[in-house]
Amino acid sequence: MTTFTPAVNDIYEQIVEVTGPSGILTGDDVLSRSCDPLSVKPTQASMIVRPGDTEQLAKVVGLCALSNQPMVVHGGRTGVAGGAYSDADDVVISLERMNKIEDICMASQTAVVQAGVTLEALQNAVQARGLFYPVDLGSKGSATLGGTIATNAGGNRVIRWGMTRQNILGIEAVLADGTVVSSLGRLLKNNTGYDLKHLFIGSEGTFGIVTRAVVKLVPLPSTHYVAFVSVPSFDKVIALLALARRLPILSAFEVMWSDFYTLAVPDASSKGPVPPGQPYYVLIEGLGYNEAADQMVFNEFLEEALSSDLLVDAVVAGSEKQCQDFWRVREGTEVIVREMSPFIAFDISVEIPAVEAYLSAVREALRTSYPHARFVTFGHLGDNNIHLGITVGPNTHDVAQHVEQLVYDALPAFGGAITAEHGIGRFKKAFMREQKSSGEMEVMRRMRTAMDPARLMNREVMF
Amino acid sequence: MTTFTPAVNDIYEQIVEVTGPSGILTGDDVLSRSCDPLSVKPTQASMIVRPGDTEQLAKVVGLCALSNQPMVVHGGRTGVAGGAYSDADDVVISLERMNKIEDICMASQTAVVQAGVTLEALQNAVQARGLFYPVDLGSKGSATLGGTIATNAGGNRVIRWGMTRQNILGIEAVLADGTVVSSLGRLLKNNTGYDLKHLFIGSEGTFGIVTRAVVKLVPLPSTHYVAFVSVPSFDKVIALLALARRLPILSAFEVMWSDFYTLAVPDASSKGPVPPGQPYYVLIEGLGYNEAADQMVFNEFLEEALSSDLLVDAVVAGSEKQCQDFWRVREGTEVIVREMSPFIAFDISVEIPAVEAYLSAVREALRTSYPHARFVTFGHLGDNNIHLGITVGPNTHDVAQHVEQLVYDALPAFGGAITAEHGIGRFKKAFMREQKSSGEMEVMRRMRTAMDPARLMNREVMF
Repeated sequence: MTTFTPAVNDIYEQIVEVTGPSGILTGDDVLSRSCDPLSVKPTQASMIVRPGDTEQLAKVVGLCALSNQPMVVHGGRTGVAGGAYSDADDVVISLERMNKIEDICMASQTAVVQAGVTLEALQNAVQARGLFYPVDLGSKGSATLGGTIATNAGGNRVIRWGMTRQNILGIEAVLADGTVVSSLGRLLKNNTGYDLKHLFIGSEGTFGIVTRAVVKLVPLPSTHYVAFVSVPSFDKVIALLALARRLPILSAFEVMWSDFYTLAVPDASSKGPVPPGQPYYVLIEGLGYNEAADQMVFNEFLEEALSSDLLVDAVVAGSEKQCQDFWRVREGTEVIVREMSPFIAFDISVEIPAVEAYLSAVREALRTSYPHARFVTFGHLGDNNIHLGITVGPNTHDVAQHVEQLVYDALPAFGGAITAEHGIGRFKKAFMREQKSSGEMEVMRRMRTAMDPARLMNREVMF
Repeated sequence: MTTFTPAVNDIYEQIVEVTGPSGILTGDDVLSRSCDPLSVKPTQASMIVRPGDTEQLAKVVGLCALSNQPMVVHGGRTGVAGGAYSDADDVVISLERMNKIEDICMASQTAVVQAGVTLEALQNAVQARGLFYPVDLGSKGSATLGGTIATNAGGNRVIRWGMTRQNILGIEAVLADGTVVSSLGRLLKNNTGYDLKHLFIGSEGTFGIVTRAVVKLVPLPSTHYVAFVSVPSFDKVIALLALARRLPILSAFEVMWSDFYTLAVPDASSKGPVPPGQPYYVLIEGLGYNEAADQMVFNEFLEEALSSDLLVDAVVAGSEKQCQDFWRVREGTEVIVREMSPFIAFDISVEIPAVEAYLSAVREALRTSYPHARFVTFGHLGDNNIHLGITVGPNTHDVAQHVEQLVYDALPAFGGAITAEHGIGRFKKAFMREQKSSGEMEVMRRMRTAMDPARLMNREVMF
């Protein structure tokens, strides 16, 4: 027999009345569900409630609020910052049954989507209509639209279409007291009062639960160009980026340091897209709509880069298969996990001109404490986003907190931030507190108190 | 001798100590300054304070807060919603002396800019470095960056580069109690806590005063294409927009109804870009970086539109001068003011598929009350933004409120909003209250109370 905390006992029957028995999971059905993408952490909660629509969800939240019952929100549980972690006395509210694409409008190129729809389901549905939702993540098969809104998810194509924030036109949300706030307009331009969607986007579920959203779509690209190049210096990487920004079809500019490339393609001299031996490698992608013109701008861009001595080697994918092959090098996480484990993965932002100075400072700081420290470095450079993998040997996880401290402590001097796209969740709270100014923390506290005075929504998240 | 309200008397000497005597205007120097773009409304205030930097401004705000002294913020005073209006007992804080461009970074394509810099000064400074700030307004010579941030200004190129919100990376602001909050990062991607800049952007100065910002720049375009076309039906305008969205260089899609075109170009059959007689005219602009490729995509787009029977007539500007001429038709406000006055100008948003149904409803409602009502209709259709001018005869201004009521009352049924880009200010408060849901108003109230509990900042603005 499942044991509930007293507060939950009081409202359990009332919640069953709202959702029906199939809307609730308890006991082993809770524990057997992981709350992280590696499936290593069983969910802790007195129950998981799965409302079927906004009305049910609002009633459930209202009941929890009346009982002062803390809630944790579950989307696809693919976040890596512990945002979906919960405690034994939490009620988890899962959006999994709110998974309908309600409407796709061709004239305005928008869709109304329930928060529990996966990114992949959304992408596929709009693609069938000749449209494209540009936010793309490795975890798209599980990650939900609601989760990507709560975390303002990024991904590979931010340089062209922005983060999730830039692709959302309207939202419907349920506040911590059960009030439904609907701002579901399809309007790109609307300066009627505060733009409430920006309050919820990226707030990691601390202001309420996003239940539906209007997403902005673009025409489905019909051309695809990928080049893989090697670059002899960081100054030339920056010059290449400036040149690439003049490509209206530019959709990705992914930099790999040599520590990444040699690990991801150990036999690069025979099998890599380009020969090894250079300090930087860049994958440049264009997505467009006009075969002849797009090919012309893409090729002329590469020719100009070559004739300006920015590149050592360059190769353009000759087929869609080769495009995928080049991307597979950049996404070569399997070989990295195999070769680097145990390691710690970072998702930092650094001002572009300071990237190399920052990395040197971090490498030096780490090697002073850990002479065998090894690094793997890559990132969405145009967005300032560097992903860094660090191992200091078999005991890496034992000293994780110290390694993190060294990586994060070096950031402020270079205009950096401890997370570019993964968010704070439970894991980075202490580090955020160290780096935000007291003014910023004060404004964040005021907003959270205004929106959730009893601190019932995702209470352990962010700060 | 100038008379101050008691509260101001108490702090006048203290403010002089902060800014020096030249930092303060009183008496006729206040009254001789207008607070609207038409220079018809003298500024009312006990004094205008002009701090020289953020530190001074923060001290002034702190002094006002201690004395419970209401403040109104002045940028370029070009807003048309009364956001810069003030009352005799207000202290106006003007950003006019904080007008330096502090830094332009070529590697990250960003600039650090004080809030009092005009849009035109910013555009010119970055253009000299081969960069481009895409937000563009008719009032750019006076409108300040701070004012465009406070109002989330739009303009003609939103379809490509977004509103002001999408072009700001970081801000520094002074809260209502004088606290300085600095989030001046140059980072495109930063999910470290709530993104505070989005709180301030578009909040019309009710949360604090933006003092500096980091703006995102793009490479200065080197190619410019403008086409002027006529279209036989609204369905075909929508189809043309869908086709135009496949142009990566698309930078404007401006629709003019026949009521606009016949007014703006009365001799269109001999001197207009295209012959008259059609219901819709569209100006389509592309800005790019590759002469041959851009010309190819632009021409192929027009050929496809012609061969799909979307266009009646089409002409492409053959020179930069002709590009300007075509734009002058679209911006033909002079002739409209002359022919339509007295008239009321609207800045509404409507869901794209509903635009014609909405306009029919409004025309019918108006003609029922005012048989001689005349309309002029144009807008940034890709952004849902319709500008509507209405005259009902010589007494138009006497019945303005009734005309506004008819225009705004019809909006909700078509997913519309009462302001797309001009904002609420003092003029549209009552209409906003009618159309926002109680949940939305409640969240806005909570946020404002959290940020400015004594309601000292722009107290008469928005709600």
